[in-house]
Amino acid sequence: MFQDPNVIYYIFAILVAALSFAFAVYLYFNVKKYPSTNERIAQVGKLIQQGARAFMKKEYRVLLRFCAVAAILILVFLPSPIWQRTSFSELATENLAMAIAYVFGAFLSAMAGKIGIKVATIANMKAAEAAKTGIKPAFMVGFRGGAVMGMAVVGSSLLGVALVFWLSGNASVLLGFSFGASSLALFAKAGGGIFTKTADISADLVGKVELGIPEDDPRNPAVIADNVGDNVGDVAGMGADLFDSNVASFTAALVIATTLAASVRAASEAIVFVYAGLGLLASIIGVATARIGKHGNPTRALNSSTYVTTGIFAVLTAIATFVFTSMPQYTLPNGGNWRIWGASVSGLLIGVIIGITTDYFTDDSKKPVHMVAKASKSGPAFTILSGMSYGFISTLPAMIGIAASALIAYKLCYPIGGSGEYAMFGISMAAVGMLSIVGMIISNDAYGPIVDNARGLAEMGNLGDEVLEITDELDSAGNTVKAVTKGFAIAAAGLTVISLLGAFMSEVNDAIVKGGLAIEKLTGFDIMNPTVFFGILIGAAIPAVFSAMLMLGVDRNAQRMVAEIHRQFKEIVGLKEGKAGVEPEYDKCIEIATDGALKELIPAGLVAILATLAVGFIGGVHAIGGFLLGNIVSGLLLAMFMSNSGGLWDNAKKYVESGHEGGKGSDTHKAAVVGDTVGDPFKDTAGPSLNTQITVVSLVSSLMSTLFLTLHIFN
Amino acid sequence: MFQDPNVIYYIFAILVAALSFAFAVYLYFNVKKYPSTNERIAQVGKLIQQGARAFMKKEYRVLLRFCAVAAILILVFLPSPIWQRTSFSELATENLAMAIAYVFGAFLSAMAGKIGIKVATIANMKAAEAAKTGIKPAFMVGFRGGAVMGMAVVGSSLLGVALVFWLSGNASVLLGFSFGASSLALFAKAGGGIFTKTADISADLVGKVELGIPEDDPRNPAVIADNVGDNVGDVAGMGADLFDSNVASFTAALVIATTLAASVRAASEAIVFVYAGLGLLASIIGVATARIGKHGNPTRALNSSTYVTTGIFAVLTAIATFVFTSMPQYTLPNGGNWRIWGASVSGLLIGVIIGITTDYFTDDSKKPVHMVAKASKSGPAFTILSGMSYGFISTLPAMIGIAASALIAYKLCYPIGGSGEYAMFGISMAAVGMLSIVGMIISNDAYGPIVDNARGLAEMGNLGDEVLEITDELDSAGNTVKAVTKGFAIAAAGLTVISLLGAFMSEVNDAIVKGGLAIEKLTGFDIMNPTVFFGILIGAAIPAVFSAMLMLGVDRNAQRMVAEIHRQFKEIVGLKEGKAGVEPEYDKCIEIATDGALKELIPAGLVAILATLAVGFIGGVHAIGGFLLGNIVSGLLLAMFMSNSGGLWDNAKKYVESGHEGGKGSDTHKAAVVGDTVGDPFKDTAGPSLNTQITVVSLVSSLMSTLFLTLHIFN
Repeated sequence: MFQDPNVIYYIFAILVAALSFAFAVYLYFNVKKYPSTNERIAQVGKLIQQGARAFMKKEYRVLLRFCAVAAILILVFLPSPIWQRTSFSELATENLAMAIAYVFGAFLSAMAGKIGIKVATIANMKAAEAAKTGIKPAFMVGFRGGAVMGMAVVGSSLLGVALVFWLSGNASVLLGFSFGASSLALFAKAGGGIFTKTADISADLVGKVELGIPEDDPRNPAVIADNVGDNVGDVAGMGADLFDSNVASFTAALVIATTLAASVRAASEAIVFVYAGLGLLASIIGVATARIGKHGNPTRALNSSTYVTTGIFAVLTAIATFVFTSMPQYTLPNGGNWRIWGASVSGLLIGVIIGITTDYFTDDSKKPVHMVAKASKSGPAFTILSGMSYGFISTLPAMIGIAASALIAYKLCYPIGGSGEYAMFGISMAAVGMLSIVGMIISNDAYGPIVDNARGLAEMGNLGDEVLEITDELDSAGNTVKAVTKGFAIAAAGLTVISLLGAFMSEVNDAIVKGGLAIEKLTGFDIMNPTVFFGILIGAAIPAVFSAMLMLGVDRNAQRMVAEIHRQFKEIVGLKEGKAGVEPEYDKCIEIATDGALKELIPAGLVAILATLAVGFIGGVHAIGGFLLGNIVSGLLLAMFMSNSGGLWDNAKKYVESGHEGGKGSDTHKAAVVGDTVGDPFKDTAGPSLNTQITVVSLVSSLMSTLFLTLHIFN
Repeated sequence: MFQDPNVIYYIFAILVAALSFAFAVYLYFNVKKYPSTNERIAQVGKLIQQGARAFMKKEYRVLLRFCAVAAILILVFLPSPIWQRTSFSELATENLAMAIAYVFGAFLSAMAGKIGIKVATIANMKAAEAAKTGIKPAFMVGFRGGAVMGMAVVGSSLLGVALVFWLSGNASVLLGFSFGASSLALFAKAGGGIFTKTADISADLVGKVELGIPEDDPRNPAVIADNVGDNVGDVAGMGADLFDSNVASFTAALVIATTLAASVRAASEAIVFVYAGLGLLASIIGVATARIGKHGNPTRALNSSTYVTTGIFAVLTAIATFVFTSMPQYTLPNGGNWRIWGASVSGLLIGVIIGITTDYFTDDSKKPVHMVAKASKSGPAFTILSGMSYGFISTLPAMIGIAASALIAYKLCYPIGGSGEYAMFGISMAAVGMLSIVGMIISNDAYGPIVDNARGLAEMGNLGDEVLEITDELDSAGNTVKAVTKGFAIAAAGLTVISLLGAFMSEVNDAIVKGGLAIEKLTGFDIMNPTVFFGILIGAAIPAVFSAMLMLGVDRNAQRMVAEIHRQFKEIVGLKEGKAGVEPEYDKCIEIATDGALKELIPAGLVAILATLAVGFIGGVHAIGGFLLGNIVSGLLLAMFMSNSGGLWDNAKKYVESGHEGGKGSDTHKAAVVGDTVGDPFKDTAGPSLNTQITVVSLVSSLMSTLFLTLHIFN
């Protein structure tokens, strides 16, 4: 393994990963050293910790079983069925390696989630108390708490990819690793999403709407579950999701790189690892230098550190490209190194632009939010109609952006050589570029639930209005930044799955060559081929069905929890009146959210996976090519629509609450609350889970390519 | 023109069209001879007639200007720019013929709409009064009134296609005719859809929700506008829509037929005309034999006549195929005639199955409606979430159905010969088959608004509860059947646009050959080509933007009308109290609906057309191929979702009103009403307009193919 000319680059990637772990540990202790004195906060914070831990434990137990079954299936069937294996060494290097890689991917993803939750449920308490001394320390605690997650996720994804690729020397095995990360993410995101929205909606429905008690009121039996939900949905789920996207983008680039001519293969692989490492390095610098400015504006602090990271990445990779071009063995023909740099940086820039455009549709100082608030004056139906409409419109700029960045990368890299493989490699590097700042993105994103929790803790700990004002401001910055990062995450997933489509084609052609099959190599998927078309139409319907199942899951689960809350208010004497010493049974609500989420998530995930298998065994690789395309297109469209409509409704409600169009308590407000409730599972359950659904389906297809190639009904 | 071996088939088609006109005239007089005695009904009926006429006049005036501009542009630019023409005869036979065909298509579509409105606004009064003598005569009046529209639409589409094709002998000119029909349909459907939902929502919002007065209460200033809306939206708009689909399916089949080998071209063209003629004949027989059975169940009567028509079509075309195979010059190789028959009949069968599946999701005796009603107990947010979820799920069977019928037709017809052209021809014949019973479908569909109006007239004419019960039953049958016919219409449009994609490719290749261009002929559109991919992503976003613009249009317009209704109730003394002799100013509301609809429809239509031009001039024919695919896939998905969710909410509301889950006036009912209001523009404005949007975009692409081929930035 040390003969590989690229050993130095693997080691570089591993070292950067190690640096990020070290930095995460530093941040962890930095957060931990903030004082905690308030007993009530400690007590409630502990409840949240326990709830989150209980959910994670149960969830991982379910997923363990799923992963075990999947690992055995991989061992037996992938990449080729075990009975076709002629020697043990073949078996060990392929089927066994893939099964082990799969388990390793799932394990790393789970670990990153666990670490994130652990830190987040400490940082929330620390941030609440830090707010007593001002916005600056509270911001730093929240941000650094989130950054631990960011560093853990990106570090472990880079470490995993480098190790698996180095040890196996086989990009196909990497697909197994990526699938492990992805299948865990699918369930973590969907399960966490169902949990968090079940609790959120139920708490609001009974608390705010029926009883008129404030958010985070400790009398509400669902209040702890709601805070737990922020952690398991937004911290662990989102972390798993971006872990998955990140790994998938590296995997796609490496799978495509292995199809390149032998003379440039090593150089191309080196570029992937260097860019990935430099992206993480840029994120580390971005996080380390993030400061809340003189004006104490947290939104500006979060955004500006994102821009700083983007700039650092562009500069660092430019330097790396300059160095590469001075070494003949790493110089690609036709100025290829700079072309790839261009593709990567333009991917990143477009990602940032998409994030900013998305922001327009959800920002409460912009027209869409104002129009939805205004429409709410005519009743909730108009809240829904106008919010959905703007959500639909918001898909256009993002779709144009994704399409443009793919086109630019392709056109830039096509002249490097090969018959289009470099063009596909360019697209995959645009995805790597877009995801390079993901460490920063996760830090920003995990900041949200931490300060949201801190707000709840400040309320329950009776820290007073001044502190609440600070936590409110921090919370609102979290929501604003979330819109940007979500648009970014979807765009990055979009570009990644496009390159996964390329990876799928590479895998199929690889299988044709290796199997000595009398089939022409694939050069593409023709829309006019009815088998492809068949796949497209069915692939397009899957995201709709998948998100519907998740939403129905939230719906059913919330009905159960509302019934439980009603029961408690009825049966526990003195609870409604807030009698001292009377406490609701928080754990019952946590249990309902947990059990319901685990019950509802498996069918949705299975539908996506089984539909892929059905289409593949019916129509073979052509149908799957179409299936992936249809899935990508409708998945991106729906994800964007749901995330943006949801964010828009959320902010329209807040806009009304801040005194516009009748203000809090008016009929307009009630209508806006309906919009927000519809938007909750849109933006936090179904929308973001679609990212993962698309990736899982793409990976399953690549993994099964040999089987789909040889076993199918039509062609 | 008489040397054409197929003259006899053109004449056959024209004769069947003439027969359908004669039958329409008979039905018209049959409806007219029913007595009308109630003065109040006559008076209100007249107001509806005047309102509808006023809208149609204004709308046609706007469209006249649009069509004039489009005709001039066609004359100058299409199929090739005027300055490239070398002789006057070339100009006359292509550009001029196409411009004339365009105007003719728009004119015929407008005429069919006008006739439909004229009859519907008579039949509504007659049906109301006929209900006094029982359900049978009322049903017959409603159904036959609708059938006039059905016969007019299908007759004139067949007549137009036969004449244009016969006279020009050029399938490309037919594209001009089809585009004329389509551009009119786009605006008629969208404009009518905005009008009808503006009036419907506003009337309900102020009448039912705010004041608690019943539907169709004459004190409501919007009540006449609401009834006018049923006619202009559901009768004229829907007629234009299906006129368009029908013409487009013939056009696609004939364009593809002209690409076939000379030896089989005439036979294939003959088959198109014979199948089209027999489809209309089957519809005539179906309509003529429709009777409401002993049990007086109108739903069963409507459905069974649809099945009868389906059966007759299958038998008639089988006989025709038998005859064709006895004539050597009309016998296709490899049992081709029977293969085409199979494709066509399977298309029709699958269309019916899709209709029935759709019905499951909207039928009030099935689970989805019950679940949405139950979810409404937790508030309107859950009505929306559950309704949307089932709407999403409902797309899957329809997508599978469309995909399967395309695949079956392709596989059946591929062996006939050629290099895939026959397979595409098979798909286009599946679309022709699916649309063969469209005469029956339109009759059923136009029946709905007529009996809906009749219900309103019976209420306003004080005909008593017994009569209202009958009209209610007729109305409810209309709603049930509507769900089936809508699913059918969307599926048919889907299959049609797939064949239009084939037609587009034929046109491009034709342009390459004719222009002597040094470009390889297209064999398909490769997903992995980033230009195609670019087109796909943007094409997929357009239906979302288009439907959002229409919904926002309804939203804005309804806000204006609600303000006007409030003004009238405030300023007109005695109106709210129902003082004798005090009447609201109905015409003001009609004016608002009319002006608003016309103002809102143009931008949405232009966005679709301009986006096509932009993509075509940026990426050329490859980008357009992708654009069409993306547009078809997301258009079908959204159309299906919106229509079905809308129908589901409508029926869930009615289910609650019939006494379930709390019944009328309960909070559950209020939540269900919110769902219904959201569903209104979903199912009657945006959803069905998407059909037409897809067709228009496909036709624009085919028409512009030469220009896109030669003028573009990327490739």
